[in-house]
Amino acid sequence: MSIPTEQYAQIFKSNNDPIEYKKVPVPKPGPDEVLINIKYTGVCHTDLHAWKGDWPLDTKQNLIGGHEGAGVVVAVGELVEDVKVGDHAGIKWLNGSCGLCEFCMASDEPLCQKALLSGYTVDGSFQQYAIGKATHVARIPKEIPLDAIAPILCAGLTVYKALKESNARAGQTVAVTGAGGGLGSLTVQYAKAMGFRVIAIDTGSEKQEMCLNVLGAEEFVDFAKDDVIAKVKSLTGGLGAHAVILLAVSEKPFQEATEYCRSRGTVVCVGLPAKARVSAEVFPTVVRMITIKGSYVGNRLDTQEAIDFFARGLIKAPFKVAKLSELPQVFKLMEEGKIAGRYVLDTSK
Amino acid sequence: MSIPTEQYAQIFKSNNDPIEYKKVPVPKPGPDEVLINIKYTGVCHTDLHAWKGDWPLDTKQNLIGGHEGAGVVVAVGELVEDVKVGDHAGIKWLNGSCGLCEFCMASDEPLCQKALLSGYTVDGSFQQYAIGKATHVARIPKEIPLDAIAPILCAGLTVYKALKESNARAGQTVAVTGAGGGLGSLTVQYAKAMGFRVIAIDTGSEKQEMCLNVLGAEEFVDFAKDDVIAKVKSLTGGLGAHAVILLAVSEKPFQEATEYCRSRGTVVCVGLPAKARVSAEVFPTVVRMITIKGSYVGNRLDTQEAIDFFARGLIKAPFKVAKLSELPQVFKLMEEGKIAGRYVLDTSK
Amino acid sequence: MSIPTEQYAQIFKSNNDPIEYKKVPVPKPGPDEVLINIKYTGVCHTDLHAWKGDWPLDTKQNLIGGHEGAGVVVAVGELVEDVKVGDHAGIKWLNGSCGLCEFCMASDEPLCQKALLSGYTVDGSFQQYAIGKATHVARIPKEIPLDAIAPILCAGLTVYKALKESNARAGQTVAVTGAGGGLGSLTVQYAKAMGFRVIAIDTGSEKQEMCLNVLGAEEFVDFAKDDVIAKVKSLTGGLGAHAVILLAVSEKPFQEATEYCRSRGTVVCVGLPAKARVSAEVFPTVVRMITIKGSYVGNRLDTQEAIDFFARGLIKAPFKVAKLSELPQVFKLMEEGKIAGRYVLDTSK
Amino acid sequence: MSIPTEQYAQIFKSNNDPIEYKKVPVPKPGPDEVLINIKYTGVCHTDLHAWKGDWPLDTKQNLIGGHEGAGVVVAVGELVEDVKVGDHAGIKWLNGSCGLCEFCMASDEPLCQKALLSGYTVDGSFQQYAIGKATHVARIPKEIPLDAIAPILCAGLTVYKALKESNARAGQTVAVTGAGGGLGSLTVQYAKAMGFRVIAIDTGSEKQEMCLNVLGAEEFVDFAKDDVIAKVKSLTGGLGAHAVILLAVSEKPFQEATEYCRSRGTVVCVGLPAKARVSAEVFPTVVRMITIKGSYVGNRLDTQEAIDFFARGLIKAPFKVAKLSELPQVFKLMEEGKIAGRYVLDTSK
Repeated sequence: MSIPTEQYAQIFKSNNDPIEYKKVPVPKPGPDEVLINIKYTGVCHTDLHAWKGDWPLDTKQNLIGGHEGAGVVVAVGELVEDVKVGDHAGIKWLNGSCGLCEFCMASDEPLCQKALLSGYTVDGSFQQYAIGKATHVARIPKEIPLDAIAPILCAGLTVYKALKESNARAGQTVAVTGAGGGLGSLTVQYAKAMGFRVIAIDTGSEKQEMCLNVLGAEEFVDFAKDDVIAKVKSLTGGLGAHAVILLAVSEKPFQEATEYCRSRGTVVCVGLPAKARVSAEVFPTVVRMITIKGSYVGNRLDTQEAIDFFARGLIKAPFKVAKLSELPQVFKLMEEGKIAGRYVLDTSK
Repeated sequence: MSIPTEQYAQIFKSNNDPIEYKKVPVPKPGPDEVLINIKYTGVCHTDLHAWKGDWPLDTKQNLIGGHEGAGVVVAVGELVEDVKVGDHAGIKWLNGSCGLCEFCMASDEPLCQKALLSGYTVDGSFQQYAIGKATHVARIPKEIPLDAIAPILCAGLTVYKALKESNARAGQTVAVTGAGGGLGSLTVQYAKAMGFRVIAIDTGSEKQEMCLNVLGAEEFVDFAKDDVIAKVKSLTGGLGAHAVILLAVSEKPFQEATEYCRSRGTVVCVGLPAKARVSAEVFPTVVRMITIKGSYVGNRLDTQEAIDFFARGLIKAPFKVAKLSELPQVFKLMEEGKIAGRYVLDTSK
Repeated sequence: MSIPTEQYAQIFKSNNDPIEYKKVPVPKPGPDEVLINIKYTGVCHTDLHAWKGDWPLDTKQNLIGGHEGAGVVVAVGELVEDVKVGDHAGIKWLNGSCGLCEFCMASDEPLCQKALLSGYTVDGSFQQYAIGKATHVARIPKEIPLDAIAPILCAGLTVYKALKESNARAGQTVAVTGAGGGLGSLTVQYAKAMGFRVIAIDTGSEKQEMCLNVLGAEEFVDFAKDDVIAKVKSLTGGLGAHAVILLAVSEKPFQEATEYCRSRGTVVCVGLPAKARVSAEVFPTVVRMITIKGSYVGNRLDTQEAIDFFARGLIKAPFKVAKLSELPQVFKLMEEGKIAGRYVLDTSK
Repeated sequence: MSIPTEQYAQIFKSNNDPIEYKKVPVPKPGPDEVLINIKYTGVCHTDLHAWKGDWPLDTKQNLIGGHEGAGVVVAVGELVEDVKVGDHAGIKWLNGSCGLCEFCMASDEPLCQKALLSGYTVDGSFQQYAIGKATHVARIPKEIPLDAIAPILCAGLTVYKALKESNARAGQTVAVTGAGGGLGSLTVQYAKAMGFRVIAIDTGSEKQEMCLNVLGAEEFVDFAKDDVIAKVKSLTGGLGAHAVILLAVSEKPFQEATEYCRSRGTVVCVGLPAKARVSAEVFPTVVRMITIKGSYVGNRLDTQEAIDFFARGLIKAPFKVAKLSELPQVFKLMEEGKIAGRYVLDTSK
């Protein structure tokens, strides 16, 4: 496979600087790295946060963003044994980790303090050729389409992890806030595949129809029309949902979640709205033994499991394809809240 | 054993009414109940909250408070098989539960919605003869002094449960806020007996001395002198404590706790200050995967385990003995924050 | 509801004595008991073992067997609060337990040393009116047919519990030996409902067809034609199944199971063939960290969960209806190995 | 630090060939490896098994054995970041693993099918300069003596892992067979440090004295004088030990262990006697829900935890120091069963 010396990428100097679509050199993999010819890359809200510098964590200068890149391995470093040229592989949020700290040793590498973050602290997938540590690139079976799998590498993985962290058991009820959105629709499908019963919380008849008839939720609560707390409780024998997956935490949904969560249940916070806080009354939290926990991205094994559910045909993530050159327009739509599902960019255009 | 028809009790009509020390009838056990001749009863902050009506949960009218009563069984109902007259037994916070709901079936009877609460929804241990459901009375080995064990029935049980809920493993570090107080000193001892390494957080050289040289903490952080977050982190290789036991949650210690808690660690909230809230920033909670959970009292098995640690000589709960007739004075000292350790009342006086 | 003083039952004096279909008095519930008018009762292999005295545990004299009885509550004892006359309820293997020992306190009441066993140490469901402890009778929603639910009360519960004990997670692979039999077909369905991927192991094209196209298994291994170890491994990427549910343990399937079980996986033994042993080589068991565990019946919560899966329409247990008077003929068919699925007896005939 | 080109090692060609003490080249670390100047190395039964070829797993030809080597890092490969020249580090049984398979991703690297085994499939610590993968070498704090820590790197780690695998909780009882031996005395000490109550099983008044007064066991059962099953049960309220650590499994102790193990308890098999089998009756295993599991060596995090307990002064592993040149004599003593505690070899002699 011949590897060019130059390629197209979307790159910006510093936070909020213009994003330029231009030619940059193709990087060379180090001894423990692989080079992937990215075919498709998803666009995540995090990419927008990275560009705007919303979070209390610095981004790299001259950054090529993106962390949902799916493609074909075109070169491997000299120490790499189990990833071969020609394999399908993916760039995910965790590009690498130290492998040595207590978090890495405990398979909690997303908590590694030296983690490399794709499209944030190292260059990501908004380019045609991207580097990943061999230990971290996602392994993608060849029968999976590379456009459809891209959003699973971050969005799918994140919600699958949150569901694992919820401690719910098969047959128990999981309430999903924002169930009709991009993350939400993945959450409902993973939840169903894991044997959970889903109460979808969102608004509008279109989303209701999708949640109940397409995604597999058993119940729908419309937050614009229903008393969410009362309705979730009445749907669960008065006791509340065993777990709540809170996508895009903000004050009111969070407060409500602790009230319609069953005693001994878990409220899992996903998503990273800038500056948001969680807050709850101590008395009911204690006497009902509620657990509130943050869930970040999954580890390497979670990644392979999330892909495996997809490969079995249990997850359909609706997406639209745009060109890599159109990234700024996609960001604009995202800022305007006009995206349903996920955008996937074709890096060849 | 001859049972009198009358006995002394401390009783009040409604919240904040005077507490009267007077003669009341000795109750008779129902078929599934036992009657315990209370010898000693601890006095807990909850008793004060009950009298004052501080919590969003109604108390019984004409209430005899108290829920740390240790004594001798003097009568058992006709269905009671495994508790015998002459056994030593204790009245604890959970006086009974339905036995049938999903929480009871899962050994989470403190979460039973029909739970009977001693000294709150049913009469408690501030009397010479108290009733408990046979399934719920604590079994006390005869070699244990009844005065010393009394505070274990609520205070000891509560902190032991909180430590179990912390998910910490032997060899890991648990930070205890308020380590030099009544609950705190029990927490430090249970933690040490469970194989945890303890960082005691409190203030003053007297408490420092006690925590380090009597109770078994490895480190002491003085919140009046030290930067708590920085010091706990520096004592734990920069990573923070694996778990934090937050006794008497209030805003600042709670906020701090989420910061010196290790990634993937757990902040356990114990204690029920009226109207307090917990509040945390979403971003670090999510990316560090912090768990915040409320812990209430232990179940029946936890009770027996907490007693067992005491019986093995691993727990020393300092206490002073007063007379049952002196309960109002003890409440007064409590309100003034003048009690170190626990007061135990001799019901014969 | 008028309760007769006499009723029909199937009763035998001592092990292997003739089973007599005759009139016996209707029992009266004690204060903590309920009386159920049994409409249908399943017939389990255990009933046959009880009659023949196959196990190292004595049966009651003058025994009325049966422990899968579904019916209507017709009387409740004076202490019973949450079960009402008119409720639908079931007699299961655990008729009662002490409620006080460490196993009962830990929700492991099947391990209670004083457990009452329906149709074994106390009279069971082969009669028209049967007694159960209120804490133990299964709660059956009224929309469920009483004939179809009967086998769930033991067979369904047992296999559901075994799957919970397997420690497998959603998306992982569970191999089921004897998947086409009565217990097996329930196991495959529960496994699928819990999100597991099932490899069914049995023999014959009829069973293959049923496992794959009716019950929901993903793969079928024919032990008469295939090399079971090699085939299970090849179906699982060379690594083996995450868990194995061994129905009716005998030497060869057990030995094989430890070999096609994945490293760190669990072999769960269900079923109680008289005098069978499990046996494994130490070296691979240790270096592959295999877990071998026995699973007995589920607890009360497991019972309600198993019923809930059924109520949701996820479990179809094929059964034939016979008359209570025909029990001996059913036992005969069972001894001859001629029963496919389960027999359920109509107690009115 | 100057590194010689030659060094002394103990090496043999093929199984059972003479072990030669001779000069061999000092190896050079690859990019992801470190070179450790071994100061002391423990001698383990496994080293003897390796030499004799006892196990169903081939050893390397021209093998330098040993897998409990403690020393000083003298060189690191170009990719190694967090291990520095001058650090103290150890060679343990797992010399490396693929880092990529599902076991490695789940922190179960001892189950990696491509694991490199020190002194077995790659050269080990019976030499002055040994190679280890940077991700796998044990990190040893500088204040710990290198001779005393050597046996912790395999023996200590193995028993610590077995105790973790036992699922016992602080305050519960763990029975240890062979408690007075080398592995046993470490097991008793780790168990005590983890908050377990220990019943030591061994024979002779010398071992009894050591177990009870030096190591910290609460009870001693002499298998030559006592009825082991009856005595363990009577020491545990008739119910049996919550867990049993079976060191050096053989038929009789294994069979007994399943009988004095509490219902719901775990029998952990450690040690790898050639060709041994475990065997148990199905009936009690099922109705008592006994778990039997094999435990191999710990993972990297377990290693650091086991070292941490040692560093805190909670573990004293008695050992004798011999010269590296005396290895054959040590093997001879081992074969004759004449070693109490552990031999540690000084590689400078």
